[in-house]
Amino acid sequence: MHENKYCFVSKAHDPRFLTLRSLQTPQGRFRTGLYLIEGIRHVARAVENQAPLQSLFLDPSRLSNPYGRRLARRLRKSGVPGIHLSPHLYRQLTLAEEPQGIGAVVSQNWVSLTDVCPSQTSFSLAVESIDSPGNLGTIIRTAEATGVNGVFMIGQNADPWEPATVRASMGSLFSQKLIRCSAHEFAEWARSFGVLIVGSSPTGLLDYKALHWRWPSALMIGSEKQGLSETLIEASDFMVRLPMMGRGDSINAAVAAGVLLYDMFNQRRGA
Amino acid sequence: MHENKYCFVSKAHDPRFLTLRSLQTPQGRFRTGLYLIEGIRHVARAVENQAPLQSLFLDPSRLSNPYGRRLARRLRKSGVPGIHLSPHLYRQLTLAEEPQGIGAVVSQNWVSLTDVCPSQTSFSLAVESIDSPGNLGTIIRTAEATGVNGVFMIGQNADPWEPATVRASMGSLFSQKLIRCSAHEFAEWARSFGVLIVGSSPTGLLDYKALHWRWPSALMIGSEKQGLSETLIEASDFMVRLPMMGRGDSINAAVAAGVLLYDMFNQRRGA
Repeated sequence: MHENKYCFVSKAHDPRFLTLRSLQTPQGRFRTGLYLIEGIRHVARAVENQAPLQSLFLDPSRLSNPYGRRLARRLRKSGVPGIHLSPHLYRQLTLAEEPQGIGAVVSQNWVSLTDVCPSQTSFSLAVESIDSPGNLGTIIRTAEATGVNGVFMIGQNADPWEPATVRASMGSLFSQKLIRCSAHEFAEWARSFGVLIVGSSPTGLLDYKALHWRWPSALMIGSEKQGLSETLIEASDFMVRLPMMGRGDSINAAVAAGVLLYDMFNQRRGA
Repeated sequence: MHENKYCFVSKAHDPRFLTLRSLQTPQGRFRTGLYLIEGIRHVARAVENQAPLQSLFLDPSRLSNPYGRRLARRLRKSGVPGIHLSPHLYRQLTLAEEPQGIGAVVSQNWVSLTDVCPSQTSFSLAVESIDSPGNLGTIIRTAEATGVNGVFMIGQNADPWEPATVRASMGSLFSQKLIRCSAHEFAEWARSFGVLIVGSSPTGLLDYKALHWRWPSALMIGSEKQGLSETLIEASDFMVRLPMMGRGDSINAAVAAGVLLYDMFNQRRGA
């Protein structure tokens, strides 16, 4: 029972706590290649998907759920290093309204563009400069549900490891291939493999229901404010729009992505 | 030019500011029947939809957009009372990252259940105990885009006037009939008018693509955590599910609502 015992950390200037805190900033994540997850569901899904867990942080006073306690014990026994935090310090490491007392540091898992070779049935998603971390995480969650094979993160600040993104993705991050590249590199990649490129825009020429998907293909979703860049619009085979009633001129980007992903998924499953 | 001049308020204990601040709380909104909106787009859409504007609050130092300035001037000249706030006080009245310098107090506009009589083609939405204000606002935004004729807010704490909901709805609140009632009252209403009742759940028996909508009908969306109540599940004609791949067991509630609303909309427009 006493192998690999976890230290207790309660001081805000303890370097072990400061290292964890730094992962809440873009700089900290970029410098280390690590990110934070929190909650039983997230840690369990990371383990299930063999995500590279570096260490655990626990607040035993909050970890009352029996499954969560067993999970923490199993990870400790399997050799994952970790620390215990005071409730006050633990609270600062999560956006959750009700923190669950178990969190982990995970290595970012980027796949290189040159390692991505689409199969004849594969379907990819490209997201460019999504402004809202919550929208980005929600889109990645829907991507998993609809059988997407890889998510291209396009743009300078693409950071799927932002705490609000990780949270909204509900564990889908661990099962997705994530590729970071420029708009130009993505367009080149798609062209070289004969991938059908479909972009979404409120001013797209084609009603999305008139599109016949073929595979391999890729759906591109742009920034909430600016939409897709000229480079990606020029690279597209089709620009589709969601028709709209009422006086609004757009719908939420994560909802639009969801409607389009389900349309693709329905055509693929013949529904 | 000097008719109806607006006072300048810069003290945090000024009662005019405190009244505005109180509308950020559920109690303040409930007590007064009012709520806050902020931003040029929101105020413009409120005017367009003849929403009952009670007063304006402005921060002239932020209101640089010419269209926004004209809008403020026009409202002042038409007799809408208002105040100017210091940047510091104005900042406290909005969730926006970049406040736009124009906001308003609006009367909540509930429609009574007894005044709602569905036509042969009408389509309603019922939302029950949605936990996330952002999700609720996003759902109302998609409802407008897909031609929904009325939104039933079911549950004790139904509050579409919460600042994050108002913000996410992007002005769609003003154009929707909003009805507050209990699950039982909603079920009675739907039954008495022969409305087809469709509920959504990850464990629904019917794949949503197998559903043939007929009108009048109503889609019911439940809480992210608990789903729909027993009362509404029993009242439903069909419980539909969105099929899912991967290891996730659900998708975001606003995305699920969006996929189902667009499916209904597509059947109605014959796409």
